Amino acid sequence: MRQMALVAFLQAQNCSDFAASWRHPEARRDSWSPEYYQHIARVLEAGKFDLGFFDDRLSMPDMYGRDHAHTVKHGIRCVKMDPLTILTVMGMATTRLGLGSTASTTYFEPFDVARTFGTLDLMTHGRAAWNVVTSVNDGEAENMGQARHMEHDLRYDRADEFMEVVLGHWDTWEDDSIVQDRESGVFAIPEKVHRLDHKGRFFTSRGPFTVPRSEQGHPVIIQAGSSGRGRRFAAMWGEVIFVAYRDLEQAKREYAAQKAAVAAAGRDPEQFKMCNVLHAIVAPTQGEAEDKCAKIQALALEIDSLSLLSEALNFDFATKGMDEPFTDEEVAGISGMQTMRDRVLQVSGKKNPTPRDFIQATGRGLMRHPTVGTPKQVADKMEQWFVERGCDGYVVGATHIPGAYEDFVNLVVPELQRRGIFRKEYMGATLRENMGLERPAVGEWRRRTAI
Amino acid sequence: MRQMALVAFLQAQNCSDFAASWRHPEARRDSWSPEYYQHIARVLEAGKFDLGFFDDRLSMPDMYGRDHAHTVKHGIRCVKMDPLTILTVMGMATTRLGLGSTASTTYFEPFDVARTFGTLDLMTHGRAAWNVVTSVNDGEAENMGQARHMEHDLRYDRADEFMEVVLGHWDTWEDDSIVQDRESGVFAIPEKVHRLDHKGRFFTSRGPFTVPRSEQGHPVIIQAGSSGRGRRFAAMWGEVIFVAYRDLEQAKREYAAQKAAVAAAGRDPEQFKMCNVLHAIVAPTQGEAEDKCAKIQALALEIDSLSLLSEALNFDFATKGMDEPFTDEEVAGISGMQTMRDRVLQVSGKKNPTPRDFIQATGRGLMRHPTVGTPKQVADKMEQWFVERGCDGYVVGATHIPGAYEDFVNLVVPELQRRGIFRKEYMGATLRENMGLERPAVGEWRRRTAI
Repeated sequence: MRQMALVAFLQAQNCSDFAASWRHPEARRDSWSPEYYQHIARVLEAGKFDLGFFDDRLSMPDMYGRDHAHTVKHGIRCVKMDPLTILTVMGMATTRLGLGSTASTTYFEPFDVARTFGTLDLMTHGRAAWNVVTSVNDGEAENMGQARHMEHDLRYDRADEFMEVVLGHWDTWEDDSIVQDRESGVFAIPEKVHRLDHKGRFFTSRGPFTVPRSEQGHPVIIQAGSSGRGRRFAAMWGEVIFVAYRDLEQAKREYAAQKAAVAAAGRDPEQFKMCNVLHAIVAPTQGEAEDKCAKIQALALEIDSLSLLSEALNFDFATKGMDEPFTDEEVAGISGMQTMRDRVLQVSGKKNPTPRDFIQATGRGLMRHPTVGTPKQVADKMEQWFVERGCDGYVVGATHIPGAYEDFVNLVVPELQRRGIFRKEYMGATLRENMGLERPAVGEWRRRTAI
Repeated sequence: MRQMALVAFLQAQNCSDFAASWRHPEARRDSWSPEYYQHIARVLEAGKFDLGFFDDRLSMPDMYGRDHAHTVKHGIRCVKMDPLTILTVMGMATTRLGLGSTASTTYFEPFDVARTFGTLDLMTHGRAAWNVVTSVNDGEAENMGQARHMEHDLRYDRADEFMEVVLGHWDTWEDDSIVQDRESGVFAIPEKVHRLDHKGRFFTSRGPFTVPRSEQGHPVIIQAGSSGRGRRFAAMWGEVIFVAYRDLEQAKREYAAQKAAVAAAGRDPEQFKMCNVLHAIVAPTQGEAEDKCAKIQALALEIDSLSLLSEALNFDFATKGMDEPFTDEEVAGISGMQTMRDRVLQVSGKKNPTPRDFIQATGRGLMRHPTVGTPKQVADKMEQWFVERGCDGYVVGATHIPGAYEDFVNLVVPELQRRGIFRKEYMGATLRENMGLERPAVGEWRRRTAI
């Protein structure tokens, strides 16, 4: 029977993806300690989650009003640590949980990304995943020595070449290259360790690469871009992708379209797992769940929304009144997440939306559309979307930490397991074994893409 | 009583700093596993070591003959993983051991280095250290997208500015900035979180920084450069520095000179720990120790030396016969480790040394000048150098792993402890507490350097 994938959507910061989460009365207050992240890891592993996955942003939100005082005061994602370090911390407290992190193709060198994720994959015996992002705003550019953020489509051209270099390096040590014979003094077979010698438009990286392949071959590739160009990128490279649909019929259409795009790219669509974002608020009775939900929603402030919208769209919302329409130039000039902007135009039905329209349409900073109810109700919805091919699994965000994951693992996971759509035990040792992803042969992606 | 510092000189690779170490019959064969590094970490912590410290190189040796076949075949440091990931792995198996890693100022952005080491410092409750290097060879440049390696002195100018940015970011969150009051909704006090706004010759990095200060303030700064420019850099920024003297009188002179340079830079010389490289081969009797030593030295191959010299000096030794003198141009053109080149000229007494002279003078790839004997003999030498102010402690390299550290911890450490020159227990929780380094106040370095 087809099995659902479960991924936890984690942040190496002072709150979950719901910025107000730290204000929850039951939220842990040690979000910059190893104990905090190891606790989450153990909860997720007890729930047989496939993967804990970190987003990343190389800056603190301060686009709103061009100042960070509000960010710090209200705790709007003002702490943001290195996710790979924290992933390693979580890996050392678990033995089966997959461990994924974002790393930007815009600010790092592919040799370094290949080496770091390759090392994590070895240190976790084949449990690593890399979420490829192209980064979105000027705040990051200004921290990382660049004046302005790169133009949208150019970022994806660069990202394509970045993938060639990273996957290229990961393929240079054949699986049986190391013999390590102390007596003859032969460490590895020279003919089985290759040099990449990449010279392209954006990158040069010669090699030889210095990290052997892991138990699962190489880290799993995650992708979340949902612009047109981002989707083509995902169809080409992604193995797990994250989407955020709220309407089942739309999700099914997009699921079918994206799987067809994967097949058109010469790949097996079953080797491409689409996971939809889910925030569950669950309790033994519906009434209790609704009470919990109301308390959680009340934690959000308008400033959370305005600050996070400013970041995502690379536009200072403090320059506008709440009901003041964006000019045509302002709408056209938005250089951040283009899908988000386009959704606002569509949902509001306005050519010139106001900040209030942006909040309404995106729900940024709010806890909108959570899945609220009893374990049975939550599982019903998850099962329906999964069975009807609206998704292959879920990216589970937290209303607060650790409570949201504890509730999900204690209440929802057993219900999914009873229905036979989620495993009771891990299937194997590596992330690929547990997600049902094939171990990639050396050079497989190159034959497919004919690069 | 003044206490000795003990640092382990580690490598995230298939051998120790002695390339032949993997050929030792008792060497572990799982040097790319977490179990290997966690075992080393536990041994060092049992021996109350201050610090385990990783070198790094962003390339595989292939300068010799412009090919990596020999490197792979003979296992000459051909595996080289990300040291920070492995350091985190070690941190999760220990509670007191300090954890240091190299990161190059030439290939990374200061914002990223500040964030990564800051995160490690939080995740280990104040046990992190950063070894600042400027990188040395073309192999790294070619992997990391640069055509050639940067000229020597320019690297240090860039490194100075790099330090200003990293230390600047580490100072932006005051110690008592976070209040995290869930009821009032105040996360941190805006007036206590500052933005760096750095714009310099080499770097721009705006901030605000996203990682609060750790239990020890910020990571300890390690430095190992020993050229003239490198020493000035160390006097300005270093808290722990590594040196490699073999003659006690020379070590005492250099120790006095470097401490005077630190005082001249407006710093307390006692807050600057000079650690000398040590390879101990120890056994219950001198005869046994000498037998062990002979077996270890016999593991080294000439190709190890030629390959590693080619890397360190950024020169292809395969272009020369073993007894063919370097031309004046070749000597002048060496762009790698200049102190090493100068030592060869001095020791050989030749203006135009041969490859054999280079091996003789540097001992590169060999296990030359180990400290061999009974625990008492080894401790005697260590005590003399320490007491006579030839050093403040030792950077202990391994002839093979884990045996060399196990022997050192089981046999030498108790002897040092009996003499009262090395602690029997850790003094505190953080690396600074254990090394006797003061917790830096916010802005202290800035007042001192008057930048």
